[in-house]
Amino acid sequence: MITSSSSAKLKMIRQLNTKAKARRESGCFVLEGRKLFEETPDSLRRGVFMSESFARENPEMAETILNDTCAEVVSDRLFSSVCDTKTPQGILTVAAIPRWNFEDLTAGARAPLVMVLENVQDPGNVGTIIRTGEGAGVTGILLGEGCADIYSPKVIRATMGSIFRVPAVRERDLAGALRRLGERGVRSYAAHLNGTNEYTEEHYKTGTAFLIGSEGNGLSAGLTEEADCLIRIPMEGRVESLNASVAASLLMYEARRQRN
Amino acid sequence: MITSSSSAKLKMIRQLNTKAKARRESGCFVLEGRKLFEETPDSLRRGVFMSESFARENPEMAETILNDTCAEVVSDRLFSSVCDTKTPQGILTVAAIPRWNFEDLTAGARAPLVMVLENVQDPGNVGTIIRTGEGAGVTGILLGEGCADIYSPKVIRATMGSIFRVPAVRERDLAGALRRLGERGVRSYAAHLNGTNEYTEEHYKTGTAFLIGSEGNGLSAGLTEEADCLIRIPMEGRVESLNASVAASLLMYEARRQRN
Repeated sequence: MITSSSSAKLKMIRQLNTKAKARRESGCFVLEGRKLFEETPDSLRRGVFMSESFARENPEMAETILNDTCAEVVSDRLFSSVCDTKTPQGILTVAAIPRWNFEDLTAGARAPLVMVLENVQDPGNVGTIIRTGEGAGVTGILLGEGCADIYSPKVIRATMGSIFRVPAVRERDLAGALRRLGERGVRSYAAHLNGTNEYTEEHYKTGTAFLIGSEGNGLSAGLTEEADCLIRIPMEGRVESLNASVAASLLMYEARRQRN
Repeated sequence: MITSSSSAKLKMIRQLNTKAKARRESGCFVLEGRKLFEETPDSLRRGVFMSESFARENPEMAETILNDTCAEVVSDRLFSSVCDTKTPQGILTVAAIPRWNFEDLTAGARAPLVMVLENVQDPGNVGTIIRTGEGAGVTGILLGEGCADIYSPKVIRATMGSIFRVPAVRERDLAGALRRLGERGVRSYAAHLNGTNEYTEEHYKTGTAFLIGSEGNGLSAGLTEEADCLIRIPMEGRVESLNASVAASLLMYEARRQRN
């Protein structure tokens, strides 16, 4: 059992939870809680850490996990100290970052459905878009450099495990990426206040990419220009914009509705 | 200028920000930031507090506000100490809680569109549903006792001002309230994993109420039984549920799509 706060493993977990650089360099990230432990594919699991209480209260599960050489029990106090959540569930997983590339965003799909996120900074929004994206059947998610790091704890929690199943690729040059998608027959639609048609009036049965901008400022002028078509989500009353994950969800599920 | 931490006004703001009971007893709540100051109707504004820096950096706005007898400047340090946000914008408003009643949920609407929330505990979700609800044109929102307090700071922030424009009523007996809505011709649809039809296959042009359950457990069996119809939001992959505010948004905007 780990009882020393100077443990190199605990130090590593703390770093993975708080520093994008540590995640990038090690190629690993942390998933807290039981559900995310269960959602982690065996092939990506690099280590499992349980609090003393968790191991005592779940003896059979703990034994099974501990038979894996990469599992350890940690004193309750230290376990809490490395967690991002305020009330940790007593189990956390260290996993390898899935290796997706640009091809994966459309691979195998006759009609790809790609979400393109520019400067979506709120981790909850990014995670929710990944989770809803799996539900709606997107083939991939493209994230600009300004987006929240998808392997940060808050994004991971909001994905509810979809992080392992939806190809998600970070891309410095979103405009260039859009052009490459265009060459594969993917038409791009930007959610924009200046859109002529409502989002329900366009057709998404063929390859489709939806562009979503930042929570505060929407899409940049540069990326808006790259879009094939501007669409508008209608809003009653005095609402000026919708939450980024809500807007993304409406578009993804409208595509799903039309495709079924 | 308020420079003493024992100021009765600051104590009141702190209480309104942290205690539902204080809000209930005083009939007031706090809105932080410039946008929410601007969204507050004059008739409900009870007081405005600005940090010293804010008043200095926005002299014209500060002067206009200070001409109102209920406005005060607060030293920066004390201002931060009463705020719920980590990086306060330097202005907060104390407003009277809007007095909605059950009749307001359907009043004046030929085809009411009501959201019924049971145990939606996450303040961000409740606030986002109110904001999206205004955008989608709902006529009212009914919240069970188990929902987050809609006048708590996190809900208020997520509503982006819609809190003043969408009738929202807290109700102990949701089942009874559903029956009263039924008597007014409102048909109720529960988002439920056991729903037979997908949500896009039902019709919402006449009076409609959508029932949304808690993030973790969905709708209670009791309330599910009261619904006229169970509908299903289809999910691909291994997604077991959607975020409560995403599910609510899909339903509200599907009703909007059909009605337009």
